[in-house]
Amino acid sequence: MTAYPNMTAEERAAEYARLRQAFDALKAKELKLNMARGKPSKAQLDMSSDIFQLMQAPEDYVSDGIDVRTYGELAGLPAAKRLFAEILGCRPEQVFVGGNASLQLMYDTISRAYTHGLLHSERPWCKEEKVKWLCPVPGYDRHFKITESFGFELVAIPMTDNGPDMDAVEQAIQDSAVKGMWNVPKYSNPDGIIYSDETVRRIAAMKPAAPDFLLMWDNAYCLHEFEGEFVPFLDIISECEKHGNADMPIVFFSTNKITLPGAGVSCFACSEANMAYFQKLLSVQTIGFDKVNQQRHVLYLKNKAHTLELMRQRAAIMGPKFRTVADTLEREVGALGIASWRSPKGGYFVSLNAMPGTAKRTLELCKEAGVTMTGAGATFPYGKDPQDSNIRIAPSLPPVEELEQAMNVFCVCLKLAALEKLGV
Amino acid sequence: MTAYPNMTAEERAAEYARLRQAFDALKAKELKLNMARGKPSKAQLDMSSDIFQLMQAPEDYVSDGIDVRTYGELAGLPAAKRLFAEILGCRPEQVFVGGNASLQLMYDTISRAYTHGLLHSERPWCKEEKVKWLCPVPGYDRHFKITESFGFELVAIPMTDNGPDMDAVEQAIQDSAVKGMWNVPKYSNPDGIIYSDETVRRIAAMKPAAPDFLLMWDNAYCLHEFEGEFVPFLDIISECEKHGNADMPIVFFSTNKITLPGAGVSCFACSEANMAYFQKLLSVQTIGFDKVNQQRHVLYLKNKAHTLELMRQRAAIMGPKFRTVADTLEREVGALGIASWRSPKGGYFVSLNAMPGTAKRTLELCKEAGVTMTGAGATFPYGKDPQDSNIRIAPSLPPVEELEQAMNVFCVCLKLAALEKLGV
Repeated sequence: MTAYPNMTAEERAAEYARLRQAFDALKAKELKLNMARGKPSKAQLDMSSDIFQLMQAPEDYVSDGIDVRTYGELAGLPAAKRLFAEILGCRPEQVFVGGNASLQLMYDTISRAYTHGLLHSERPWCKEEKVKWLCPVPGYDRHFKITESFGFELVAIPMTDNGPDMDAVEQAIQDSAVKGMWNVPKYSNPDGIIYSDETVRRIAAMKPAAPDFLLMWDNAYCLHEFEGEFVPFLDIISECEKHGNADMPIVFFSTNKITLPGAGVSCFACSEANMAYFQKLLSVQTIGFDKVNQQRHVLYLKNKAHTLELMRQRAAIMGPKFRTVADTLEREVGALGIASWRSPKGGYFVSLNAMPGTAKRTLELCKEAGVTMTGAGATFPYGKDPQDSNIRIAPSLPPVEELEQAMNVFCVCLKLAALEKLGV
Repeated sequence: MTAYPNMTAEERAAEYARLRQAFDALKAKELKLNMARGKPSKAQLDMSSDIFQLMQAPEDYVSDGIDVRTYGELAGLPAAKRLFAEILGCRPEQVFVGGNASLQLMYDTISRAYTHGLLHSERPWCKEEKVKWLCPVPGYDRHFKITESFGFELVAIPMTDNGPDMDAVEQAIQDSAVKGMWNVPKYSNPDGIIYSDETVRRIAAMKPAAPDFLLMWDNAYCLHEFEGEFVPFLDIISECEKHGNADMPIVFFSTNKITLPGAGVSCFACSEANMAYFQKLLSVQTIGFDKVNQQRHVLYLKNKAHTLELMRQRAAIMGPKFRTVADTLEREVGALGIASWRSPKGGYFVSLNAMPGTAKRTLELCKEAGVTMTGAGATFPYGKDPQDSNIRIAPSLPPVEELEQAMNVFCVCLKLAALEKLGV
């Protein structure tokens, strides 16, 4: 088929009429399909059912001599700290094990910087005249929302194939009002980009003007290959340490996309100096997070090798879904010159760039046809995509058959929106 | 025996010498006993073991059609909201179900007021020149620490037999810098006082100068009788509603001293208007708390009647411990005129007022003899008891035999400190 931009007006009109019919037929099916969020499917949840069989014997309640049922151990069970340190490639004493949500640990970190300041802050950030924050785009809407919620000025940094555009970052951090930066270093949300080692090392070597510059390092997908072998990653804490930036990064991780999305275990990792500072503040907020669930996860995940083995099982569910997305896109719009997309080998999303000015309209049509997607613009600060182009596809929730339907609807809508833009 | 203050100097010297010998003998035993915190005992934890047997069947993962394992339901499972609403005497839509710690919900509430303001705030509290906070004394050190941590000026309010001195409260709230007040309305920590209905109604009818005055209502011990029948309590939200103060109170509760101290479920309750406001802010912090553990608790606790039945079982463990404390105090120091104490019928603490100027010394001696207690002064703002008199006894953790030993040590130390003060 001819690419849409190369079609004559008549060809476009004919194509539009044909697609409009297809759209009406799809609409008549009254579909209810969802590709909005990175939710694991029921089949994947069922894979973790064994976790409910644990903690039956009284000896399971004890870990390193600690009764996991009672108060105490602010930073989490030592066994959980060892497990996550092995996964993240850092030291157990650099790990704080939290509750069911790394998002909460991230929010609380920013909130604490705002209320009390960080280790190297001259004052709490609420006393700063202005705080600016670097947001690689496209990025994760929930990250952006946190920093927006505290009134920071969000500064978009373009993503490249190797991670954030480091020239732009190095320029931006010369402003002492720039206090930090969001990162999803492996299988970035939504692009699925892996920061190159060179990018990671350049980040670790940064010399920000702000003494309390905070590198938010959300390694949510660090074990989340659905195709091919496990891809090793650098420990950002030791990389930063080499450049005198030991206290700059905080790493976040959770098991929510390994075990149970709503009842996993989260953690953060940072320098020992940061850990001492944060624990002093955290001890006012809580006596400690749920150690029973931490113990459940220690018994279930065992170690990094076993966790990777579990991830290979989950890949058998996720892989076909991502192949469905890639195949459908290639088949339906590959030759039309109206969209480009990435084909990641891990993570939870496919990032698609539609013809500028058509993302909103595409998703409006999807909604009309019963397919829920992440809102257009969500991957940009303030929910505003200046190009109105980026669309995040989240294929993890629906079974493959439903996903095929949803992707068909999506492609029809993408084409309709492109033709409307080109003129029909 | 003659009361110490009525003894001659010679009598006191003889008594001191005798006690010093007893103290040395106790010290030689190298005891390691702990009456520091309100930790349930191992025997009590074992009572909740059945909770680990739940969630075995796939149908247990579903509650009101919701898969409890996945993301969503920010305010918690509807079934959990119903359970806690029944316990607290409010409406399910007024309940937000959280994670394993009500302390965290309390901290976050204050933190949110500081970062974003409350529903009726003119500005976030971090933008206020000064924030003052009412602290009924003696009170709970972790409460005081939260408000201290945000730099509020803590104002001590004396406790009476019926709750906080309301004349003092009504005077204090005329200052618009006074933004809130801590409360433990039933079996207050540490006094074990139950606020009278009259006090609760007077609180509900307050007219604070601050439009965003926040009543922190920690009903941690509302089902926690260890002697006698369940004592009903007023729902502070509807009481406040009657006086146009619907948005003033936030109620906190948790199952930590019903099921598992480190892995229970917490909640807060407030007006629907507050709930809408808080949820908007909370949705930035988290996708939702651990619904698997919420479901586990719904299945285990069932309803208020069954929860009270479980509490009667726990009372069989707690009751004898409190009787040991009361009996030992009565026998050892009852006639000496050096201390007064309360004998609550519920809660987790016994509050003792030693002869002014002797609390620190008493606990110093206890430590020397291997008995760990809550630090002297902990029950006052900034950890400073102006009388150096109040001591919090937490008898829940040690088994009765150990508790007897610990209380014997404590009484010897109390007497030594009193004699030192009186002059020996």
